[in-house]
Amino acid sequence: MQQPIIAPRFEGVARLLAEATEQDPTHRAQLAVYLRGEPVLDLAVGEGLDTGRLHGVFSVSKGLSSLVFAKLIQDGLVDPAGPVAQYWPEFAVAGKGAVTVEQLLSHQAGLPGPVNGLDMDDFLDSRPAAAILAALAPQWTPGVAFGYHALTFGTFIEELVLRITGRRVQELYEEWIRVPAEADAWLGLPEEQEARYVPVPSVGGMGFVDPFGLSGLAMNSIAGFLDANGQRSYDLMQVPNLRRVREVGPAAVGGVASARGLARAYAYATTGLRRADGSLTAPLLSAATIAEVSRDRAFGHDRISGNMKAFGVGFMRPNPNNDWGSAAAFGHDGANGTVSFADPGWGLTFAYLPFTPQAGGTNGCLAQRLTVAVREAILAQLAG
Amino acid sequence: MQQPIIAPRFEGVARLLAEATEQDPTHRAQLAVYLRGEPVLDLAVGEGLDTGRLHGVFSVSKGLSSLVFAKLIQDGLVDPAGPVAQYWPEFAVAGKGAVTVEQLLSHQAGLPGPVNGLDMDDFLDSRPAAAILAALAPQWTPGVAFGYHALTFGTFIEELVLRITGRRVQELYEEWIRVPAEADAWLGLPEEQEARYVPVPSVGGMGFVDPFGLSGLAMNSIAGFLDANGQRSYDLMQVPNLRRVREVGPAAVGGVASARGLARAYAYATTGLRRADGSLTAPLLSAATIAEVSRDRAFGHDRISGNMKAFGVGFMRPNPNNDWGSAAAFGHDGANGTVSFADPGWGLTFAYLPFTPQAGGTNGCLAQRLTVAVREAILAQLAG
Amino acid sequence: MQQPIIAPRFEGVARLLAEATEQDPTHRAQLAVYLRGEPVLDLAVGEGLDTGRLHGVFSVSKGLSSLVFAKLIQDGLVDPAGPVAQYWPEFAVAGKGAVTVEQLLSHQAGLPGPVNGLDMDDFLDSRPAAAILAALAPQWTPGVAFGYHALTFGTFIEELVLRITGRRVQELYEEWIRVPAEADAWLGLPEEQEARYVPVPSVGGMGFVDPFGLSGLAMNSIAGFLDANGQRSYDLMQVPNLRRVREVGPAAVGGVASARGLARAYAYATTGLRRADGSLTAPLLSAATIAEVSRDRAFGHDRISGNMKAFGVGFMRPNPNNDWGSAAAFGHDGANGTVSFADPGWGLTFAYLPFTPQAGGTNGCLAQRLTVAVREAILAQLAG
Repeated sequence: MQQPIIAPRFEGVARLLAEATEQDPTHRAQLAVYLRGEPVLDLAVGEGLDTGRLHGVFSVSKGLSSLVFAKLIQDGLVDPAGPVAQYWPEFAVAGKGAVTVEQLLSHQAGLPGPVNGLDMDDFLDSRPAAAILAALAPQWTPGVAFGYHALTFGTFIEELVLRITGRRVQELYEEWIRVPAEADAWLGLPEEQEARYVPVPSVGGMGFVDPFGLSGLAMNSIAGFLDANGQRSYDLMQVPNLRRVREVGPAAVGGVASARGLARAYAYATTGLRRADGSLTAPLLSAATIAEVSRDRAFGHDRISGNMKAFGVGFMRPNPNNDWGSAAAFGHDGANGTVSFADPGWGLTFAYLPFTPQAGGTNGCLAQRLTVAVREAILAQLAG
Repeated sequence: MQQPIIAPRFEGVARLLAEATEQDPTHRAQLAVYLRGEPVLDLAVGEGLDTGRLHGVFSVSKGLSSLVFAKLIQDGLVDPAGPVAQYWPEFAVAGKGAVTVEQLLSHQAGLPGPVNGLDMDDFLDSRPAAAILAALAPQWTPGVAFGYHALTFGTFIEELVLRITGRRVQELYEEWIRVPAEADAWLGLPEEQEARYVPVPSVGGMGFVDPFGLSGLAMNSIAGFLDANGQRSYDLMQVPNLRRVREVGPAAVGGVASARGLARAYAYATTGLRRADGSLTAPLLSAATIAEVSRDRAFGHDRISGNMKAFGVGFMRPNPNNDWGSAAAFGHDGANGTVSFADPGWGLTFAYLPFTPQAGGTNGCLAQRLTVAVREAILAQLAG
Repeated sequence: MQQPIIAPRFEGVARLLAEATEQDPTHRAQLAVYLRGEPVLDLAVGEGLDTGRLHGVFSVSKGLSSLVFAKLIQDGLVDPAGPVAQYWPEFAVAGKGAVTVEQLLSHQAGLPGPVNGLDMDDFLDSRPAAAILAALAPQWTPGVAFGYHALTFGTFIEELVLRITGRRVQELYEEWIRVPAEADAWLGLPEEQEARYVPVPSVGGMGFVDPFGLSGLAMNSIAGFLDANGQRSYDLMQVPNLRRVREVGPAAVGGVASARGLARAYAYATTGLRRADGSLTAPLLSAATIAEVSRDRAFGHDRISGNMKAFGVGFMRPNPNNDWGSAAAFGHDGANGTVSFADPGWGLTFAYLPFTPQAGGTNGCLAQRLTVAVREAILAQLAG
């Protein structure tokens, strides 16, 4: 177990986190912030938690798989403005021939899911799901709207990476990012890491969700999945608690990580990581690539949730209603309240990972306030 | 007078409606729900009301006329993605040459009304209004926004149908839908049905509406109409109380119906209606046509009202702020709080028709909760 | 000092203004309304204020410079739908080759400011700022969003006017509008008018603004400017208090005016001004030009502020959340709560200019209510 880190000037951020835990004793979370490749915060709060534990990070996984996709763009293997069908010919049906890669990866294709749902195991080996989704007609004329593709985003990025490279996105992530970054942020958790995994607690149900509505389709409400007891379950929050999910690490929701691992992955990709000898690793992504993938491809109110959102190529971006970073920031949040991103405007990377899922709003708000405190600390450092 | 219908498992929906009436004794309304072509609810609540009475349904009329338009698309008589000017050459002026049929019928053309208003009787014989509107410049560059064309929508669909078929939309509706559906949902109420009509009560005025503002233009505020006493009136809610309006049945706002009639019209079009011998009529619209017309053409905040809305080809769609149906649902609401739609995702059709107009919000909210209760009842039935 | 003017029927508007001042004794403001070229209201309320004093009007300046641009369109010197690069070839880089003039002047180009900020004096002579901005990549793919370019709008319109005409927008404004309109509304205040200038009071700071965030970039937060004492300041509200700013009159935020001056400038441009002999001056802008520049080019939620906005070519437009005018109205508001516009739908021009900056909301709300009262007064006049 590593020692907690609170760099000078960042005490206020740590205090804010501690206060949240005082106010809500059930609050357990990790927080990690790297500045120009070095940790300035690496903390765990709440009973029995330390910085070495791992947890399901849900849609934060989308950010990790999008880092791989950014590398493909950088290497000239894919044109984000080109049609999906150029790489995936079967996609060019039912009015989707002109849908571009960047539209698909910014939730604009109108394909939240098939009306009969998908067998959840189709999200483990995504080829069958990809075949089903490629045949669908969009829910809105492409260009008219965007709406969060909570699960199918994973199928799309997995299929695209496979078509483009012949390899699985998880495999490339492991090779290009996780291993060199020495990052506890996995898309596919090996058996030997299992002891560090802390299961996601069960939370109460939501109100009525129409399984045939856009939200229901996006959450595959009609089909559910087989839980650890082989029973059909509809509680998506339990998905990462299944070993077979953690093993595969589906690109949309299957990541397992610590906050430190997430901050390291983003740092390796954007700022480089400080080595023991004081040098920095070369950032995986160039400034030009970062500018390309973080440029907004969609902004406004989400067709499915109604919430204000902004998306680049795969990455979520800060928006006026949830302003967690600079104009250059990109990353992703997750269903349990996790928020992780790179903010090249500040040279920082950030991960807040709660182990007690709360209303997204609550943790979202705490996470947002933590990002403000981090930025104020850096400003004070610059000024001081 | 037909007996009320409450099918097993739908008692909860009926109770919700009864509770609303207990809480507000002035509440009078009809509710009708058909499931796979058969009535599961057919009710009237409130003093002196039964399921056989007829009422003005305001913009719910837009859904009825759009059913006719869907049939024209199905029959290959019109391409929704083609330019309006292809069918209506005079429309191709003042920057409107590229406006498509689907843009016009999803409120994107920026033509809420001329600044001097229209003689309200122009909405009865729409040809003069059509000539005036075709000459106008749009209020926004087409593609930039959509804004609810409360009255001019009717002129547009009437003119388009006339140009495409040489016949009036009301005539086609009567022939293709109302008669075969035996539906008490009229665009043009014959004299012999008049005894069943319940006038729309007068409600208090609204706050200041700028007659030259977008809302004022959309409501023809400057011109008003001649009321039953031959006086100029600006209370649009009184429009269906004029016999000459009911006789013509303007496609935007002139429909007269019972809830059962509305549910039957949508059922005839989408699921078929159950015959006495147990067979179903063939649905007027194919699954492909339904998918085509219910696909979103516009989503976001309305330029005129500021409210979140979604529109297909003529039809209103559920949206995150008013989620009355599945991803396949399409229909329309009306100014007095009426909501009626088909939801092919559930095989249901629905009509809530209040005879005491309330704040749209109140009835809108009750209607939305009724749709949730209906869906929960069907889920229970499926599970049971 | 001119006598206050309250034309018959407009007493209610004056009373509303007086009540606001009774409720908040610190409230000081001017209000001027012209109807068909004649003043119907010209008032000052609050301690020590008269109608002849001048004040910084912040972004209301954008409306004044856009009047000049409208004249260029009218004269056929620029095509608003044409690419910026046609007039400004250096702009055609980094994905901006297809950005149109009307997109740039409706805040759609995604260029709130460079990440290192601009020397504030670059906004005085805008050529260096223009060179820097022309080289930037947009923050969003053009067409995806609009976001208020609080400062860089000025650089863009200044550079465009210079490229198109070879002359400064301030010079053209002076020649074409301010002098013939005899309007106390200056882009560039001569020394001899200085005695009439009332400094903008200092207000408390805002909460945390990320200097590298979209808002921070738009407000040039990182660079600030040199205040009257030669110290670096970040309080943008103090900018018009600098003589060197008033002297130049930057097109985005540097205007100095009285309410009467603003109402006269808009009246000269749209309705003409009543001469002593009873005749009207010819309106600078034709009805066709007014329709062209006031047509919405952008509507929805601002990418930077999150607020609902609508923009024509340079001009702000009323929107459902802040409905200060008819469908034909166009103008601009400013950071201190100033609102000024022409409303050709009513034949009026309007300026509310507070000398005590308040929360934009508060004054914005008062200004909006004043516009309603003005319109009600005209309606009463028409009816009476």
